[in-house]
Amino acid sequence: MEIEIATIGGYEEVGRQMTAVRAGEDVVIFDMGLNLSKVLIHDNVETERMHSLDLIDMGAIPDDRVMSEIEGDVKAIVPTHGHLDHIGAISKLAHRYDAPIMATPFTIELVKQQIQGEEKFGVENDLVKMDAGASTRIGDDGVELEFVNVTHSIIDAINPVLHTPEGAIVYGLDKRMDHDPVLGDPIDMDRFREIGEEGVLCYIEDCTNAQKKGRTPSESVARRHLKDVMYSMADYDGGIVATTFSSHIARVKSLVEFADDIGRQPVLLGRSMEKYSGTAERLDFVEFPEDLGMYGHRKSVDRTFKRIMSEGKENFLPIVTGHQGEPRAMLTRMGRGDTPYELEEGDKVIFSARVIPEPTNEGQRYQSETLLKMQGARIYDEVHVSGHLNREGHYEMLNALEADHLIPAHQNMEGFAPYVELAESEGYELGEDLHVTRNGNVITLVE
Amino acid sequence: MEIEIATIGGYEEVGRQMTAVRAGEDVVIFDMGLNLSKVLIHDNVETERMHSLDLIDMGAIPDDRVMSEIEGDVKAIVPTHGHLDHIGAISKLAHRYDAPIMATPFTIELVKQQIQGEEKFGVENDLVKMDAGASTRIGDDGVELEFVNVTHSIIDAINPVLHTPEGAIVYGLDKRMDHDPVLGDPIDMDRFREIGEEGVLCYIEDCTNAQKKGRTPSESVARRHLKDVMYSMADYDGGIVATTFSSHIARVKSLVEFADDIGRQPVLLGRSMEKYSGTAERLDFVEFPEDLGMYGHRKSVDRTFKRIMSEGKENFLPIVTGHQGEPRAMLTRMGRGDTPYELEEGDKVIFSARVIPEPTNEGQRYQSETLLKMQGARIYDEVHVSGHLNREGHYEMLNALEADHLIPAHQNMEGFAPYVELAESEGYELGEDLHVTRNGNVITLVE
Amino acid sequence: MEIEIATIGGYEEVGRQMTAVRAGEDVVIFDMGLNLSKVLIHDNVETERMHSLDLIDMGAIPDDRVMSEIEGDVKAIVPTHGHLDHIGAISKLAHRYDAPIMATPFTIELVKQQIQGEEKFGVENDLVKMDAGASTRIGDDGVELEFVNVTHSIIDAINPVLHTPEGAIVYGLDKRMDHDPVLGDPIDMDRFREIGEEGVLCYIEDCTNAQKKGRTPSESVARRHLKDVMYSMADYDGGIVATTFSSHIARVKSLVEFADDIGRQPVLLGRSMEKYSGTAERLDFVEFPEDLGMYGHRKSVDRTFKRIMSEGKENFLPIVTGHQGEPRAMLTRMGRGDTPYELEEGDKVIFSARVIPEPTNEGQRYQSETLLKMQGARIYDEVHVSGHLNREGHYEMLNALEADHLIPAHQNMEGFAPYVELAESEGYELGEDLHVTRNGNVITLVE
Amino acid sequence: MEIEIATIGGYEEVGRQMTAVRAGEDVVIFDMGLNLSKVLIHDNVETERMHSLDLIDMGAIPDDRVMSEIEGDVKAIVPTHGHLDHIGAISKLAHRYDAPIMATPFTIELVKQQIQGEEKFGVENDLVKMDAGASTRIGDDGVELEFVNVTHSIIDAINPVLHTPEGAIVYGLDKRMDHDPVLGDPIDMDRFREIGEEGVLCYIEDCTNAQKKGRTPSESVARRHLKDVMYSMADYDGGIVATTFSSHIARVKSLVEFADDIGRQPVLLGRSMEKYSGTAERLDFVEFPEDLGMYGHRKSVDRTFKRIMSEGKENFLPIVTGHQGEPRAMLTRMGRGDTPYELEEGDKVIFSARVIPEPTNEGQRYQSETLLKMQGARIYDEVHVSGHLNREGHYEMLNALEADHLIPAHQNMEGFAPYVELAESEGYELGEDLHVTRNGNVITLVE
Repeated sequence: MEIEIATIGGYEEVGRQMTAVRAGEDVVIFDMGLNLSKVLIHDNVETERMHSLDLIDMGAIPDDRVMSEIEGDVKAIVPTHGHLDHIGAISKLAHRYDAPIMATPFTIELVKQQIQGEEKFGVENDLVKMDAGASTRIGDDGVELEFVNVTHSIIDAINPVLHTPEGAIVYGLDKRMDHDPVLGDPIDMDRFREIGEEGVLCYIEDCTNAQKKGRTPSESVARRHLKDVMYSMADYDGGIVATTFSSHIARVKSLVEFADDIGRQPVLLGRSMEKYSGTAERLDFVEFPEDLGMYGHRKSVDRTFKRIMSEGKENFLPIVTGHQGEPRAMLTRMGRGDTPYELEEGDKVIFSARVIPEPTNEGQRYQSETLLKMQGARIYDEVHVSGHLNREGHYEMLNALEADHLIPAHQNMEGFAPYVELAESEGYELGEDLHVTRNGNVITLVE
Repeated sequence: MEIEIATIGGYEEVGRQMTAVRAGEDVVIFDMGLNLSKVLIHDNVETERMHSLDLIDMGAIPDDRVMSEIEGDVKAIVPTHGHLDHIGAISKLAHRYDAPIMATPFTIELVKQQIQGEEKFGVENDLVKMDAGASTRIGDDGVELEFVNVTHSIIDAINPVLHTPEGAIVYGLDKRMDHDPVLGDPIDMDRFREIGEEGVLCYIEDCTNAQKKGRTPSESVARRHLKDVMYSMADYDGGIVATTFSSHIARVKSLVEFADDIGRQPVLLGRSMEKYSGTAERLDFVEFPEDLGMYGHRKSVDRTFKRIMSEGKENFLPIVTGHQGEPRAMLTRMGRGDTPYELEEGDKVIFSARVIPEPTNEGQRYQSETLLKMQGARIYDEVHVSGHLNREGHYEMLNALEADHLIPAHQNMEGFAPYVELAESEGYELGEDLHVTRNGNVITLVE
Repeated sequence: MEIEIATIGGYEEVGRQMTAVRAGEDVVIFDMGLNLSKVLIHDNVETERMHSLDLIDMGAIPDDRVMSEIEGDVKAIVPTHGHLDHIGAISKLAHRYDAPIMATPFTIELVKQQIQGEEKFGVENDLVKMDAGASTRIGDDGVELEFVNVTHSIIDAINPVLHTPEGAIVYGLDKRMDHDPVLGDPIDMDRFREIGEEGVLCYIEDCTNAQKKGRTPSESVARRHLKDVMYSMADYDGGIVATTFSSHIARVKSLVEFADDIGRQPVLLGRSMEKYSGTAERLDFVEFPEDLGMYGHRKSVDRTFKRIMSEGKENFLPIVTGHQGEPRAMLTRMGRGDTPYELEEGDKVIFSARVIPEPTNEGQRYQSETLLKMQGARIYDEVHVSGHLNREGHYEMLNALEADHLIPAHQNMEGFAPYVELAESEGYELGEDLHVTRNGNVITLVE
Repeated sequence: MEIEIATIGGYEEVGRQMTAVRAGEDVVIFDMGLNLSKVLIHDNVETERMHSLDLIDMGAIPDDRVMSEIEGDVKAIVPTHGHLDHIGAISKLAHRYDAPIMATPFTIELVKQQIQGEEKFGVENDLVKMDAGASTRIGDDGVELEFVNVTHSIIDAINPVLHTPEGAIVYGLDKRMDHDPVLGDPIDMDRFREIGEEGVLCYIEDCTNAQKKGRTPSESVARRHLKDVMYSMADYDGGIVATTFSSHIARVKSLVEFADDIGRQPVLLGRSMEKYSGTAERLDFVEFPEDLGMYGHRKSVDRTFKRIMSEGKENFLPIVTGHQGEPRAMLTRMGRGDTPYELEEGDKVIFSARVIPEPTNEGQRYQSETLLKMQGARIYDEVHVSGHLNREGHYEMLNALEADHLIPAHQNMEGFAPYVELAESEGYELGEDLHVTRNGNVITLVE
């Protein structure tokens, strides 16, 4: 059976991930993501109303025109998890393919919401849920699609595996090797090892942290760290505010629980806080206290802040958006004094997140912290662990899968470099079975 | 009562700490430390045989000649804990004072061993043990010395407090605010708060991490991290080696326990590993498995390595010296292939420590890691938390003690800067109640 | 004669410099500056209409209320040079003092322009010009004010020296030790040495680069570097654009000359480009080609850009504002495509400036460069030398003046630290003759 | 004509460069270098007596076993310039090939000296001198070898070009684009452009600084900087010492000249100082003052130091080895007080060099500076420019040559990355005409 891999997007950057695998007549597309920074660099862009070609020109969404070179029928579009760089272009590109979108339940729900926000295109692909651990047949030639459970900074993440007569193709974006992930099941290393023994033709891997030594700590380490931080504030009788990635439900859950432990009522504030946690709760991925408030609209947020101020800041833990210092996010607005919540000398602000290391973010985050400190806030930073594998996680995956071919992904050339050197130290040879590729290439594995 | 503070050493550097407090007729000396880097910069220096004046000229030990300006009698020499930068000059300077050395039991034991190694001077001061939490009278004018329990990267650390009729003088070197320290009791914040309410005349504080945001995580966070790292290696059937600070008994204990959890026999190797852990066990500060081997002499270490090699590396966890890449330490020798332990492709090396950020260390550590990697080792780095307060720990201490005067210590001028700015933001005024001082100064608090 | 020094502003930050020296009955104020970053952190602040008390609360201008503690009459307000952090608060504070503003001609002109822009206060102090090298009597008690010529990144900079019967007080902000400054005279080290021999009571010094090794290179080194960069583009037949500090007339002059050398017509674009270079030319500080265009108003800038586009980009060198990536500056607008100048693949952009190292600037500059690169521009960076003394320049000044007292200025505590350590290595003692001071302090040198 | 390129060494590291080009039946080898850091990581290795296979195993010299796969006869071994990473393996590998070593006169002389030091192998290849700008025929099939003059941090450097019927192969290691190089001719860009117009089949390029913005400044900029530094010391009446790369004759020349300008007698000290400058003078590449002393042997160095001390340090400028803080180099020994030259408070040390950014060097250099400062020395650092092209130099070369194929070299994968991204922005495609390759690969350009 002929096997080809089209590396469409995310092979020259982080963002706008998209990869297509052809096995004989059948094609499966993995991810259709957005590169948000290419949108934000412009002053006033509303992507909702833009045409896909303009977004392609901006480098914001994958340039899928290479798909015309791929023979065969697209049978499924498979986003691995619900982050924007993996689902954010579905509303702009999916309607071009006569194929269902298949994903885990939480991811499907986020895809649905994204499609609803689209104003330019009508996206009518079927949305098909499949659980982690499950499999389905693709086409009529013995190809099967399996979802292997992985752990990432969002729940219900999987690595799709396409089983073909030529061996498995493991699409490895994005994951951490977490054996104690706070929410959901541990990464299914047993299954990866089994697949490795069955024979892996190709492993496509997210190289994001390959330059970092050691292994990425488990979410349970971040939880232990967060507990340490929050318990140390148990005696404080003023305001405490926390921020984290809205989609990081496990972290939100820890924040909610420790808030309770130290005698404070947690409340989620900000549009995306409401969206992700509300969705996760509705789908039973997480159990929050029944009375946990979640408010996204400006008015209800302000009303809540007023209630907090009148009932006493010392009784609440607002969990808000703004971990990167985004100019319009809730925490930045709080720093500017633009909300009814009044920060005072000694109040604590917990960033349960890391600044994504890029000068724009660093500048905005610095401004946000400066504003907060001007009001007397005390800053607690980097209570966080990454969602991506460090070098030793990659080393373990390479040993578990023993793939015939490797394709580094999810980075620019500089990001590929340490992964390439790791792979070489494990015996892979560049240009032989180790494929450094770029957006728009097609790699033929079996002719 | 007249109160004077002589800031003798460690006010222009980290290392060679020494401070004297005079309350009326009575003088207490806190710490007598060594600045090891001033010794190591020279090629071949054997401090054991050197005269104190030469060591003073080198900047290696405190220049205590300022003590001649202090009227009154030295009643006690009080090292706060057993690190060399706090006890390392006792063998060179203590004999000049007709006073006992008072410290907690573990610290006293380390002082005793240090004195035994001295070849130049006879040090015959009494060694007096006093437990954390206890107090003793100093002189006849109502002065009392109390040991408040603190948490640091060595066990049995205290902050001595000198209670005078003019208020308490809190000598705050070195600590982390740890409410769950794995070994020993949590920091006694209740007592600090009480002392604060009784009235603190002066707080002398270690500024080491004042530039770092947030709070230093608890040792239990490092333990959770270490557990994550070691459990992830449970299936590995080759060699695993760990290194950490020899004096960090809590960390050694965690290494020993997790070794057992993953089915390996731990064994401590290297002179200082044997010394510190042996002492801690002998004094009942820690309970190790009965059969835990500790070997310091070259011959017994080599014999142990041979046994490990013949019984199978996969059954052992050697815990060795060399976390900073010191050229003669055990791990560096293993990297050079100078021991019977043979590293192989895939073997794991855990640095449960951080490189002390100074170019010499960084160069040596880099060389050590390079040698280890040349033999195939996989490196796990920075499984560690600092023993010193970050900015928010300092903020909490300032609020707990509400001292009349502050004296930043344990740093050079650059290290003082962020602490000064923190103190100013809390209302202290430089030159008024905030004293930036240098080695050899005398500050008069009450005339 | 009693001598007091009030360290009013710029002793906890870079910006809003202000220092008052009282010699007997006579008081001289050195600098009245603005801390621009304290204004820009807020979204929409128009300082022109603000009251000084509000600006003091924001930390934007010096809190001169300490002046009420200084007995004697203010006889002169003496800005050292025309940068905003030295003259930017004159329009808000000078009217409170019945004293002339005395400065070199170029500085006076910039002060005049600043006063004209003020909308809240009427500032009617006399503006008195005095040349570098000249002196004038202050009051009736034998005090004299001398302007010693120095070299900085703006022309006509001086260090004022107040000669008193108790010795000279040298106000040393801001300078580089430049013996070949491209424009204007070299630093007058002979005069500094003479003053040193006559006896210096106090030296107040800008510590900005004290942590940097070696000496700051001469402007002639930057000029040689710039020549190298621009001559290397001589064959390029597309667009070349340069940016630098608008007030840096020597650099602008080099840009203008090298433009001519490589066959391009230079043109200055942007409000502050027009302002500073126009003023310098009008006052005969620099001779530009007669036909050098300078345009500040949006309309004339756009008209010029259109002319450039129609006559051929290859014939021009636009020298524009925007070296820090300021969002509204000309170069940033060019990057956004908001001007008629069309950048093309291969066009060159020269930043003859360094990013002021602060996350906000770094973020903005990164965005500006990203936008420029998206249009194909090639970036040439850091063709620049600092205007401030490095460590060895400070070392030389200390040896030239041999002052009795030192006061580090123009930095926060972290910036003071390396200067303090340098001064200590030269024998000064903190708290004795080396005064680390803060905004609002008064130091009595002679009682 | 078949064209193959074997990328033998230096494609995974900086060091041990070696590349072979086959054009039909004729093979030319470019460079045979040493990776010195792979030697120094071991404690006591004497390469002079080692076998090449052991050195290959250590990664110290190129693994040329791939040459057995290359059909055709080696006709010439062509080192591009005299740095060790380009000639240092000739004594270990050249004797395996029945071919002359062809290089420019200065390079040939250094090769000759290296061969004389070899103790293991007899190297009897002919040594053939060819000047920059000259050409010679290779074999009988119309292949010609040309030396194009380039500028680097050593004199008499060239880029060899192999003209074949299929187009030119330009071997581009190592160069800076210098139009005013102080010593020797400017880079021959006209010839590169001509070759570009004639048609370049392949360009092999040193990527070292591709991540650095802008262009590498000319040596004349470093010279202007050095002049500024040295002239600023003209009045100093104590010791001044300088260090730089021994092989950097243009820099040594500037040091010698400026020493004279400020009234000091320069003297070159240290084995490699004597070697390189002596050779350059003997071959008439540089004209030094007749009485310029150069001493390499310990005894004559010490005698010179004694003479300097007795005649007065203020009359001399010792130019010594030790710019990287090498433990046994002259400057480090001076820091340790191991020479008769006595440093005093205020003496100046000029590092006309940059620390090669690697932790081992950084640690050693830090130690060397610390020792020098302990003796009172004042440090002047980084009076230097790189010898390698920055990004815009690469951009210009790409545009001048318009090669059909590109092969990045002289770096590891991380170093290739920015060059790859630059090449892609110029239209090259990875895996098509842009070849990221590794040690031991053979690339077929024409079959």
